[in-house]
Amino acid sequence: MTADVLVREVSLRDGLQIIRTIVPTQDKREWLDRCITAGLREIEICSFVPEKYIPQFRDAHEVAAHAVGSRSLVAAALVPNLRGAQRALEAGIPKLVCIVSATERFSQANLRRTKLESLDELRQIVHLRNQYAMQGNRAILQVGVSVAFGCPFQGTVADGDVRSTVASALEAGADEISLADTAGQGDPARVRRIFRALLQDLGGLPLAAHFHDTRGTGVANVFAALDAGVRAFDSSIGGLGGCPNSPGATGNIATEDLIFMLEAMGLDTGVDLDRLLELRAFVARCLPDVPLFGHIAQVGVPQGFVRAAEAACRRCEGLK
Amino acid sequence: MTADVLVREVSLRDGLQIIRTIVPTQDKREWLDRCITAGLREIEICSFVPEKYIPQFRDAHEVAAHAVGSRSLVAAALVPNLRGAQRALEAGIPKLVCIVSATERFSQANLRRTKLESLDELRQIVHLRNQYAMQGNRAILQVGVSVAFGCPFQGTVADGDVRSTVASALEAGADEISLADTAGQGDPARVRRIFRALLQDLGGLPLAAHFHDTRGTGVANVFAALDAGVRAFDSSIGGLGGCPNSPGATGNIATEDLIFMLEAMGLDTGVDLDRLLELRAFVARCLPDVPLFGHIAQVGVPQGFVRAAEAACRRCEGLK
Repeated sequence: MTADVLVREVSLRDGLQIIRTIVPTQDKREWLDRCITAGLREIEICSFVPEKYIPQFRDAHEVAAHAVGSRSLVAAALVPNLRGAQRALEAGIPKLVCIVSATERFSQANLRRTKLESLDELRQIVHLRNQYAMQGNRAILQVGVSVAFGCPFQGTVADGDVRSTVASALEAGADEISLADTAGQGDPARVRRIFRALLQDLGGLPLAAHFHDTRGTGVANVFAALDAGVRAFDSSIGGLGGCPNSPGATGNIATEDLIFMLEAMGLDTGVDLDRLLELRAFVARCLPDVPLFGHIAQVGVPQGFVRAAEAACRRCEGLK
Repeated sequence: MTADVLVREVSLRDGLQIIRTIVPTQDKREWLDRCITAGLREIEICSFVPEKYIPQFRDAHEVAAHAVGSRSLVAAALVPNLRGAQRALEAGIPKLVCIVSATERFSQANLRRTKLESLDELRQIVHLRNQYAMQGNRAILQVGVSVAFGCPFQGTVADGDVRSTVASALEAGADEISLADTAGQGDPARVRRIFRALLQDLGGLPLAAHFHDTRGTGVANVFAALDAGVRAFDSSIGGLGGCPNSPGATGNIATEDLIFMLEAMGLDTGVDLDRLLELRAFVARCLPDVPLFGHIAQVGVPQGFVRAAEAACRRCEGLK
């Protein structure tokens, strides 16, 4: 049973990282369980960042312990540095996510290191991962390339800079690449062009996309990336997170809207929209003061909507 | 000076038709003038519907008189029936928009006539238009095919029903076709498939698209239609109108978000975003109790954003 498209839920990490209200560990566990119940199969569950920087993630280890116990889940965690990677590996996390910036300016301003320093640390993380692999837990290493479609400091990012950053990350030992539109600057023509070129260069490379809906192009960018051949997308229930620049501005793509679009297009995601909306209601109860976004929760699916798998099943029945 | 893409502003018609606050004629004139100042070149300015049904349009004739005086504008008006068409032609409107439903059920429930009756009335309107044409004013007749991507009563609409509705409208004498996602049910795969088939069938037919953002797919649908070859899109400043099903739900695509995406993709629209945001602020003053949508007004264009025409000019300068 493989879905046509993998939707990676990032609300527990990207969604929570700028929210000051500390969500109790017990609620994070229920949040995670509800994700799994809805059919989400890969979830970014936390960041192994030092507690002094983001207190929200001080319970990363407990959340991880709960997540790695679930067989039907790939639990991913952000690891901002070697120390974080070590904590994640100790916790048995099967997928580590490291960030490398496409531009030098964003790297220094936001990640507080040069690109070369990022790549050096990445190599150390790969080395550590390989050591743990010899003990039986070979974690997958995903590198997220931030500001791949536009940089808030530099503006336009040359396609060649994205491609060379990806090449460096792969050389350093990354297993998967995700391109991130960190500040919501991408347009679908650029998105399709860059992903097409990468897939042409790199063949069967596992490639994911992380779009923000800051300027209303998030879902259009998904369609453009799909068209280029990308089959893994990050999103966050209720559009939570994604560093919106101003209060009330949208951040991440809302998972429920993304699932609706994909399923309406006939792409099976394995996700149940009703359960997803229950998760959203739960998140709203956990964070009563945080605005949630997304259209489907407000207007519902249209008359005639059928999940992709069910539509396929009906066609199949019709052939009998 | 031709833009790459025509953005048809529909706020004065589709935007205002469900709003009870009657906007004074003087404000509508300023609204229109601000559209023109922003560079919008085709504007749906009103509906010639009986006043008893929509009092908002009781000043249709005065607004039309103001609009047809402008040389830099194609003023379009919705004409729900033959009487409306006559009023529009008398007012000198150069483009009439008639609606035919893709489904029989929407036709009878919403337009209160059968599809055959719609097509009969369309033929009468064509005949009347031709009579006026002999006196020198040959108005263009656009037929908007409603519920082309999904019907709120019937659900899914067969591609063949859309194609046959378009064929009937052309046979009846339509000059242009616009496909409308009236209830915001379309997904980009369907949109691209239907437009591609139509453009293949009908070659150089002037084809436009009217999308609603009810379920967050509006802008993705624009990208899909662009990909199929469509170069004319309806939108409404601040996302005003578009019959949202519930309070606070988005309706039409917001013109400012659409212009941003198109220009970011390198497609010249001829529209100045700053002037457009001034129009939006004016509309907010006219309708203080009506929620406006759209992302660009909240977060602005990204660092490095350059209008398509300017980017082309810079490339040209670089060649000198």
